[in-house]
Amino acid sequence: MRSVAIIGAGMTKFGEDWERGFRELVTEAGIRALEDAKISGDEISAGYVGTMASGSLVGQEHTGALIADYMGLNPIPITRVEGACASGSLALRQGILAVSSGLHDVVVVGGVEKMTDLDTAAVSQILGGAGDQEWELFLGATFPGLYAMMARRHMHEYGTTEEMLASVAVKNHENGATNKYAQFQNRITLETAMNSKMVADPLKVMDCSPITDGAAAVVLAPMEKALSYSKKPIEILASEQATGTLALHDRKSLTSVNAAKIASERAYKKAGLTPKDISVAEVHDCFTIAEIVATEDLGFFAPGEGGKAALDGRTKIGGDIAVNTSGGLKATGHPVGATGVKQACEISWQLRGERGAGQVKDVEYGLTHNVGGSGATAVVHLYKRGY
Amino acid sequence: MRSVAIIGAGMTKFGEDWERGFRELVTEAGIRALEDAKISGDEISAGYVGTMASGSLVGQEHTGALIADYMGLNPIPITRVEGACASGSLALRQGILAVSSGLHDVVVVGGVEKMTDLDTAAVSQILGGAGDQEWELFLGATFPGLYAMMARRHMHEYGTTEEMLASVAVKNHENGATNKYAQFQNRITLETAMNSKMVADPLKVMDCSPITDGAAAVVLAPMEKALSYSKKPIEILASEQATGTLALHDRKSLTSVNAAKIASERAYKKAGLTPKDISVAEVHDCFTIAEIVATEDLGFFAPGEGGKAALDGRTKIGGDIAVNTSGGLKATGHPVGATGVKQACEISWQLRGERGAGQVKDVEYGLTHNVGGSGATAVVHLYKRGY
Repeated sequence: MRSVAIIGAGMTKFGEDWERGFRELVTEAGIRALEDAKISGDEISAGYVGTMASGSLVGQEHTGALIADYMGLNPIPITRVEGACASGSLALRQGILAVSSGLHDVVVVGGVEKMTDLDTAAVSQILGGAGDQEWELFLGATFPGLYAMMARRHMHEYGTTEEMLASVAVKNHENGATNKYAQFQNRITLETAMNSKMVADPLKVMDCSPITDGAAAVVLAPMEKALSYSKKPIEILASEQATGTLALHDRKSLTSVNAAKIASERAYKKAGLTPKDISVAEVHDCFTIAEIVATEDLGFFAPGEGGKAALDGRTKIGGDIAVNTSGGLKATGHPVGATGVKQACEISWQLRGERGAGQVKDVEYGLTHNVGGSGATAVVHLYKRGY
Repeated sequence: MRSVAIIGAGMTKFGEDWERGFRELVTEAGIRALEDAKISGDEISAGYVGTMASGSLVGQEHTGALIADYMGLNPIPITRVEGACASGSLALRQGILAVSSGLHDVVVVGGVEKMTDLDTAAVSQILGGAGDQEWELFLGATFPGLYAMMARRHMHEYGTTEEMLASVAVKNHENGATNKYAQFQNRITLETAMNSKMVADPLKVMDCSPITDGAAAVVLAPMEKALSYSKKPIEILASEQATGTLALHDRKSLTSVNAAKIASERAYKKAGLTPKDISVAEVHDCFTIAEIVATEDLGFFAPGEGGKAALDGRTKIGGDIAVNTSGGLKATGHPVGATGVKQACEISWQLRGERGAGQVKDVEYGLTHNVGGSGATAVVHLYKRGY
């Protein structure tokens, strides 16, 4: 299997985009990625796109064919992949396989979601389809409630506090303030986060990622040819996916996501790395508790120490490990199908040294961690500079 | 890239299944495929599932993780793939790539749709998301109307008649009568078909595939190891996918599906075969006109001659080429995400000589042709006996 590199990355400004539709967003991201790679559509021989719920959100399924059509790429195969909020990373993983296998040389991978065409209650119901529809959603358990239970248990087992949760939001807004693509580019204080409206005790508005429109895309090529396309290719060292139970109540533990532990352990092994080697990571902070759990599952901190680490600033830029330099899902926004691909864009720009005010120094290895539902799917990718 | 074989196949009885839900259907098909392959879940290292619209139809996205959970396969990666009514074949294609690349050895591929939880009008609206939501569905063009336009144009250009269309339905019901999994196992006359209620002129009820619940699954392994699992592995010679415009009005021709022509030409070339080599084919007869167009696009008959060929019995068992021996979408039923995998099951059973009263004699090569929407995605697979 050949090694694969990202040779181009692009995304739309995330936010509430009432002027444009699904197809405009994904086309813009795709074109930006192609422009960044300085290639034309003729060189693309396949594509993958991650979208969670375009059928319910905008009435459009069959989005692979839509994108091939609207990007002028017919008749190349473009395939939609879905794994709830991990859809973007699953599309990336399929794209990597298409290139690493030798089936294709240059592949475009997109992620997209158009979420603001419906009201928040409807969107919340649709997003509930990422969990167990029969045993969670049908009984009223939407995601703030599910993650609230994880948070409450983490507090019970480890003494994690609401201040620790809030500190994740403060840090991610701080990072989002340097990201021109972020939905929220404003800084917030711990007091603002702590005083924000309760959503599902103990999670407040500022513990929750927003509803967002947006798209992101990357262009992949075999590493052996990547330097002929890009001066700064980013090599993908590992791409691992694992599953856990769909429903939260079937888990042995509420304070860690087993699928994420398995995927990351396999990824580190594949790449010959340890958590200490990683200096920049985009993790799935759909809620602040999710980032704390992720930093433990990924081995950055021992179980139960993620909350204190966040409060102590160890996950800030300049800390032990820079987590969510993009602003994470919290501040960049979370167009669910796009998030995994956006994470790959951010890590690419960090490894290329192009993140300006949000740049982490001396970055050697990067990681992305993307979760579907409450953790029934987890996908971990590892990256390094390919130049 | 390694050659890949089907070592097990299974499906549910297709029909209106009001007693069971999405997860029961797909689990049953998966278990039947595993039983047919005589392997346990421990030997499966990955999976793919095709579903078009589970989010809209049953409120459940994230079906890859659902299946891993309900089949007891955690933590292996299972990924949902979607390309409208071609979702099943796209899942098969991803499964083939996972095995041919060497990433995985034994992979399960499922297809499923649970469609009867909603009323027909709602389902029709949801299925309209397979076309162009903004430029077709929003303006009222659902699929019977789109295929009616293709039929009318075919009649105008080639003199195709309503009797020719009806003869496809009669033949597929004849075949369905021998298929224990078929939704409709009753024979019909040309008169019944011709006198059935008009849906979208010239397409009548008997020109349309039904709304169906069902699931199908196959187990894949590398050909080099297939005989250690199965006495009768079926080798997959080619797996090709192509795209065309999402909307019908953007096509150069309404009487052929360019994506299907491209996918089949590439598949024949890959396998070193010609249309004359194929003795049994499952093609995408969502409407009778679609089968006629398919038999032309696949090179079985010259453009414009598909209708007459059907009326003359050349596509019956015992004719030039046996088309839709399962009963096709028309009589077996069309649970959209399941159809492509069901086609692979039927071809496997034909090549294994296990189709009983519906068996075609001296079968050497088989073909499946699965289309999304009005032809924006087309997937063609070629098969031969691997023993």
